[in-house]
Amino acid sequence: MKHFTHLHEHSTAELQGLVAAALRLKKSPLPDLPLAGRSVAFCFMNPSLRTQVSFEVATAALGGHPVVLSLGQDTWKVEHREGIVMDGPAAEHLKEAVPVLARYCQAVALRSFPEGKSWQQDKLEPFLRAFRKYSEVPVINLESATSHPCQGLADLMTIQERMEPRRKNFLLTWAPHIKGLPQAVPASAAEAAAAGGMNVTIARPEGYDLDPEIMQRIARRCDENHGQLKVTDQVPEAYDGAHVVYAKSWGSISRYGEPPPQDAEFRRRWMVTAEKMRRTQSAFFMHCLPVRRNLIVEDAVLDSPASIVIDQAENRLHTSKAVLLALLASQRQAPQESLC
Amino acid sequence: MKHFTHLHEHSTAELQGLVAAALRLKKSPLPDLPLAGRSVAFCFMNPSLRTQVSFEVATAALGGHPVVLSLGQDTWKVEHREGIVMDGPAAEHLKEAVPVLARYCQAVALRSFPEGKSWQQDKLEPFLRAFRKYSEVPVINLESATSHPCQGLADLMTIQERMEPRRKNFLLTWAPHIKGLPQAVPASAAEAAAAGGMNVTIARPEGYDLDPEIMQRIARRCDENHGQLKVTDQVPEAYDGAHVVYAKSWGSISRYGEPPPQDAEFRRRWMVTAEKMRRTQSAFFMHCLPVRRNLIVEDAVLDSPASIVIDQAENRLHTSKAVLLALLASQRQAPQESLC
Amino acid sequence: MKHFTHLHEHSTAELQGLVAAALRLKKSPLPDLPLAGRSVAFCFMNPSLRTQVSFEVATAALGGHPVVLSLGQDTWKVEHREGIVMDGPAAEHLKEAVPVLARYCQAVALRSFPEGKSWQQDKLEPFLRAFRKYSEVPVINLESATSHPCQGLADLMTIQERMEPRRKNFLLTWAPHIKGLPQAVPASAAEAAAAGGMNVTIARPEGYDLDPEIMQRIARRCDENHGQLKVTDQVPEAYDGAHVVYAKSWGSISRYGEPPPQDAEFRRRWMVTAEKMRRTQSAFFMHCLPVRRNLIVEDAVLDSPASIVIDQAENRLHTSKAVLLALLASQRQAPQESLC
Repeated sequence: MKHFTHLHEHSTAELQGLVAAALRLKKSPLPDLPLAGRSVAFCFMNPSLRTQVSFEVATAALGGHPVVLSLGQDTWKVEHREGIVMDGPAAEHLKEAVPVLARYCQAVALRSFPEGKSWQQDKLEPFLRAFRKYSEVPVINLESATSHPCQGLADLMTIQERMEPRRKNFLLTWAPHIKGLPQAVPASAAEAAAAGGMNVTIARPEGYDLDPEIMQRIARRCDENHGQLKVTDQVPEAYDGAHVVYAKSWGSISRYGEPPPQDAEFRRRWMVTAEKMRRTQSAFFMHCLPVRRNLIVEDAVLDSPASIVIDQAENRLHTSKAVLLALLASQRQAPQESLC
Repeated sequence: MKHFTHLHEHSTAELQGLVAAALRLKKSPLPDLPLAGRSVAFCFMNPSLRTQVSFEVATAALGGHPVVLSLGQDTWKVEHREGIVMDGPAAEHLKEAVPVLARYCQAVALRSFPEGKSWQQDKLEPFLRAFRKYSEVPVINLESATSHPCQGLADLMTIQERMEPRRKNFLLTWAPHIKGLPQAVPASAAEAAAAGGMNVTIARPEGYDLDPEIMQRIARRCDENHGQLKVTDQVPEAYDGAHVVYAKSWGSISRYGEPPPQDAEFRRRWMVTAEKMRRTQSAFFMHCLPVRRNLIVEDAVLDSPASIVIDQAENRLHTSKAVLLALLASQRQAPQESLC
Repeated sequence: MKHFTHLHEHSTAELQGLVAAALRLKKSPLPDLPLAGRSVAFCFMNPSLRTQVSFEVATAALGGHPVVLSLGQDTWKVEHREGIVMDGPAAEHLKEAVPVLARYCQAVALRSFPEGKSWQQDKLEPFLRAFRKYSEVPVINLESATSHPCQGLADLMTIQERMEPRRKNFLLTWAPHIKGLPQAVPASAAEAAAAGGMNVTIARPEGYDLDPEIMQRIARRCDENHGQLKVTDQVPEAYDGAHVVYAKSWGSISRYGEPPPQDAEFRRRWMVTAEKMRRTQSAFFMHCLPVRRNLIVEDAVLDSPASIVIDQAENRLHTSKAVLLALLASQRQAPQESLC
């Protein structure tokens, strides 16, 4: 495994291997410190709580030192375009910044949300792409425009802790929000569920389809694992028979960057409620967090025993360790030796 | 000891035990690393120097990894009110954020100053209260509206290094400032001195009484330890016979959030000066820092051998270690085991 | 070695010893962890990427805990003037802040750029000076108005990896920029090259002389090591015969704080180009980074095998370790023992 940036680059067996490793790490910590004397750089162009803390704690628990950087805040603006005359606000090109971090650290990780102006531009994930292009060490995606692969792993792990996922019904439901959010989390959650062999239903309002390429990846993964994929705007009917209800808001591509409708009826129609949950097969409720209470999901669901969002968040820690170990195991010893 | 958030929740014996442990840790570091492989989260809603660095260094010296978070800056705004529809600026409820941190870390700590609009609201310490309510692991108060218990411990330790405090005279004197500051430090300093068996005199201008509940706690602690408690507005007479002069500014409750008078005569009356110090029994001068020179205290006092503010700050390191050890000793092993 | 803040305070033998240590550390890490249980404070009044990460990683690799602080951002504004009445924005005096950090940490480091209003004021480096004055533990300069000594060490190390520097030709060339930048990097790079026994040529436009004191230090170091020093405004002729071309922009002292001319002809005249590089003796290209592409240097040079900027940046890690070890070896054990 060279990088870990997009689920679709990894086979189902590879993803299930990472989940299995995370489940083992949760039960019993490693006897040794495989990251002793090593550092990993975590670069944030957008804020984070779970991602930062789970990776910090995972790195430290493996004996390593996590370097946390707010790119563009602690430092300066960075450039990713080639051939440009840099006489604007960006003081450094990723063509230098990334190789330098790769000399100091055994892996580099990046969170870079979409800009929200042009989906065609954002889809290219220019910053993440530059990290992969310029890094001599493994790159981890901490959430980009199209993908949140570490979240997807934790999602599948959390489901596997509660059921054998094969042939179970996974409902990904769109949910209300005050902003038009990225598609990374729903994309990775659905693909991870498909990698677990689940039937995937995506319920969303008309005009809120996931990007066609994202849908293709989910469909391919469903096919491989003999799960069914369905898209619908019929709620609450979509809840019927679900074993897992996974809520997430995302923005419309055709009205890119705009918030969804805010009227009470629309909100009520799409919010996850106890009433809707009663249609399921005693489904578990999942969300990647942070979650806006009584907008995305009502308190009665989030505070019920069906809600497994805290376990889901905890599992970010264990899957982070699994990802770090998988990447670093396949890496050459110390990067500075490349010069000697 | 489940949490360490308010001195008044702990017996005098317990507080003296923490000070004794800190004194031992100052003389000789522990032979082992009780926090190896563990992390502690330090959440700051307000800036900090001593508190952050002393706890970071203490955690690292015990083998652990300190996670430092600026809540609302590195991350997003957090909500503490129950039952609310979260369609405003707050993206996450502490009902999720705190349990998640508690899954990653062996203790969680919070600094949250009062908002400065309503003392009745601020007194409730809603953020700290939410941390205690939602955390499965020990909570440490890094300063709240009413309490700075870690500072109080370091204060008592610093006094004990220089004298047997029983029956000695502790003067807490109000001091000038450009802002109306919280009552946390004076409350904890006075209660800690009382826990050491000192006689406590509080000198403050009319209208600058500490909150009645805070005064009750100090009075109760004085009673228990047979110290006398006195409140006065007579300076410099209040300095007579003092063994310790502890300066701190705080705001008026009746004109809550407003700065105190700024005229030169008022400032001069309440600033700690070498002239006033000459009335004491060669008292030591203490302040929690940061201190505004020549406003709270004149250079001639702060730069004299009587000033022990640097030792007082250093002792934050040793008391931090004592608090971490006391909390973690009583904690169940690793939090993730709760699931297995 | 008590502090490491300015190259001119150290003998050539001492500087060469640090470079030799860094070269050894690059080849083989230390078998033990000399900083185990210890912390080092890195204070930034200005942003940083290489300096922060290289020192964080160096400290962690030696077993220590790096404390990273944004002075004036994570904390509050600090005061350095003596005798002042602190009723303005600064909440803490360095006379307290530095001794306190020195009680928590085994060394304290500061980055403080010049303010850019008065060169005579900035030259005094009031914040760094205050750190040295008030610290009981070693002080490291992470870049001040006049000096970036850690960069200078890495520069010399990088040259020594490629050639025996004695009698080789080092060209420091001024380069275009959108801002008037500090003189710290060119000052330290030139002095480090001189300490390596190189002939130093400084090419800069009329009016862009380095400060006379800085020039004296470079001249003295050249004399000591039998290198020649030359200043010229003749480019591209200055490139003739160079073994190393080191580019850097800096501001004019006579028009202090103002940006240099931005017209295309001036820019083209001073930018490092492949055409100019062809006049050299197959010179290596160096820059401290971050570098503005196609303003300071064109892509064709920066992306050629002659460019060693990434190795130069990596060497910051190894020289950081060498500096930490040299400072801490000469330090008394633990600072808290001063009290016991």
